[in-house]
Amino acid sequence: MEIYAVIMAGGVGSRFWPRSRAATPKQLLNIFGEESMIQNTVKRLNGLVDEKNVFVITNKIQRDKIIEQLPGVPADNIIAEPFGKNTAPCVALSAVIVNKMNPDGVILTLPADHLILDEMLFKETLSKAADFAYRNDSLVTIGITPTRPETGYGYIQMKEEEVEEGIHKVETFAEKPNYATAKRFVKSGDFFWNSGMFIWRSDAILNELEKHMPDLYNPILEVREAYGTDRFEDVLTNIYGQLKSISIDYGVMEKSNKVYLIKGDFNWNDVGSWEAVYQLSDRDENGNVKIGDVYTENTLGSYIKNDHKFTAVIGVENVVVIETDDALLIVNRNEAQNVKNVVDYLKMKNRKELI
Amino acid sequence: MEIYAVIMAGGVGSRFWPRSRAATPKQLLNIFGEESMIQNTVKRLNGLVDEKNVFVITNKIQRDKIIEQLPGVPADNIIAEPFGKNTAPCVALSAVIVNKMNPDGVILTLPADHLILDEMLFKETLSKAADFAYRNDSLVTIGITPTRPETGYGYIQMKEEEVEEGIHKVETFAEKPNYATAKRFVKSGDFFWNSGMFIWRSDAILNELEKHMPDLYNPILEVREAYGTDRFEDVLTNIYGQLKSISIDYGVMEKSNKVYLIKGDFNWNDVGSWEAVYQLSDRDENGNVKIGDVYTENTLGSYIKNDHKFTAVIGVENVVVIETDDALLIVNRNEAQNVKNVVDYLKMKNRKELI
Repeated sequence: MEIYAVIMAGGVGSRFWPRSRAATPKQLLNIFGEESMIQNTVKRLNGLVDEKNVFVITNKIQRDKIIEQLPGVPADNIIAEPFGKNTAPCVALSAVIVNKMNPDGVILTLPADHLILDEMLFKETLSKAADFAYRNDSLVTIGITPTRPETGYGYIQMKEEEVEEGIHKVETFAEKPNYATAKRFVKSGDFFWNSGMFIWRSDAILNELEKHMPDLYNPILEVREAYGTDRFEDVLTNIYGQLKSISIDYGVMEKSNKVYLIKGDFNWNDVGSWEAVYQLSDRDENGNVKIGDVYTENTLGSYIKNDHKFTAVIGVENVVVIETDDALLIVNRNEAQNVKNVVDYLKMKNRKELI
Repeated sequence: MEIYAVIMAGGVGSRFWPRSRAATPKQLLNIFGEESMIQNTVKRLNGLVDEKNVFVITNKIQRDKIIEQLPGVPADNIIAEPFGKNTAPCVALSAVIVNKMNPDGVILTLPADHLILDEMLFKETLSKAADFAYRNDSLVTIGITPTRPETGYGYIQMKEEEVEEGIHKVETFAEKPNYATAKRFVKSGDFFWNSGMFIWRSDAILNELEKHMPDLYNPILEVREAYGTDRFEDVLTNIYGQLKSISIDYGVMEKSNKVYLIKGDFNWNDVGSWEAVYQLSDRDENGNVKIGDVYTENTLGSYIKNDHKFTAVIGVENVVVIETDDALLIVNRNEAQNVKNVVDYLKMKNRKELI
């Protein structure tokens, strides 16, 4: 069994403005520690997936930086989609590429910008999922055992019967719930967080794409043909222009009857906002995270990061302060989701230098 | 009658950090409008005091900038104290200088960093005070009719009997009161805000200095002698080194029985903190003051000023945000007084570049 990893790195991450920009979204930032999230994502696969079998699907703006950040991954494996079309086209593209190289190949489809602690447990889970996917004509997704009634994640309900140890058929997918529903989900024991991580053989996902998304399947076969030739880029641009923007969850996972869930018990976070970064950081005795040249007084529960400029904060609570070379953000932690509104505002004002 | 103005401009204004610095304290900043507070202070005297009769007592760090900001005032009139010794030595120095030029001269002693609206009324009050001081061997201070129970100002109680229209003898001086006391003061009708503005003949204040502060009076006579000669600077340094640091209020005003209060009914503010600046600024419908390239969302009652950097503020209330080239301040308006602690911290850390 040969394992391939496809890392989805097309996100623009506007919720991490002003650190994230179009050319340097969340996955390229070192939000935690020294290395970027995509570097950590690749490193985490060490021992399970050979770097030559790692593919990254990204866009033209980010490609060069990713090549630079991942010197061990062949530059040809870092592929820029000509247009962002959500996850289904990205999955189909990666499936035909791996399929052409190795029809038996098992693909781990992984987001570039998630935080995973307990790396051993993560790798064991992936390994078991890959083994199951190799032996079965099935689509496997990792469901994270929920540790709190989180309303920021989608959920997956499993069927009761265990197919193999820790693996169940999926009953249904659920959107982000309200708090009461989330509490019910967590209490039930059969709902798991939708991690957006998928494991399948390339032919298994292609078969399901053929069945549920023929409008994507048929054109993507032309890309399969062109892959590895001079025509690849032109064909990709031509085909992508015609594709609908649609998620793999909606297009296949929620419709197929071959979907399995493997339980993930490792510590996982999709790091969806500055609030998540705050929650995941080490705090001092006042609940503050201070990175850079920072003075605080009577300040609690705050995340304060500056790149250069001495920053003094007095008498505030629960704020995130992010200072970069050209911009400054001050946001209440409870409203961290609204940071994307700043990016929308800047787009409206055509202030490209800040986006 | 010849009127002189002595503008006291020695303050370091650490409560306006990061805009105020040792070399550019509050009085040299254009906190309101286009011109600096000291420029407004001089301009406000137009028609009452000839610019050649304006003196500024400052320190060595600020002198050059003041000369630059006040091109109409003779550079020789802008005098640097060798050491900061509070207001009594400053008053004595100005008294001997004016006295040597014109023993009859009336001196208006004015802080450089106060905001005064109703300029006509202000000038009328000064004019009346100067006239009274010229005719009487007395020390006149302006008491501002209080409009609210302000706890940030000292108060002056007047005696009931009116000596001339709007002029009363002073009963007593009171420190900054607590809120209950301030309410009582305002209700009483005989307490006024201590503006720190004084009007007297040079010989009148010198007589009172001789009586109440001989340790200051005797040495300052040497400065009188040296003024206008080559020896002035050396003598000033030598004498100032020996002087005690003491306020004119404590040294003379609270002890002399020649002190009169003239009522000031003009709009006055000593602009003691960023909170005062907020209160004195025009606000938008959300109670915000935004100066510079600023985006706000769900933000109320805040003062946000940046010099260059685009600033986004989301979901906060009652904060002051000041961004300069090399520093950033975020402070709750209610704790605006504590900004000086940042300067103390920076001094302790010997970070001269930020002070």
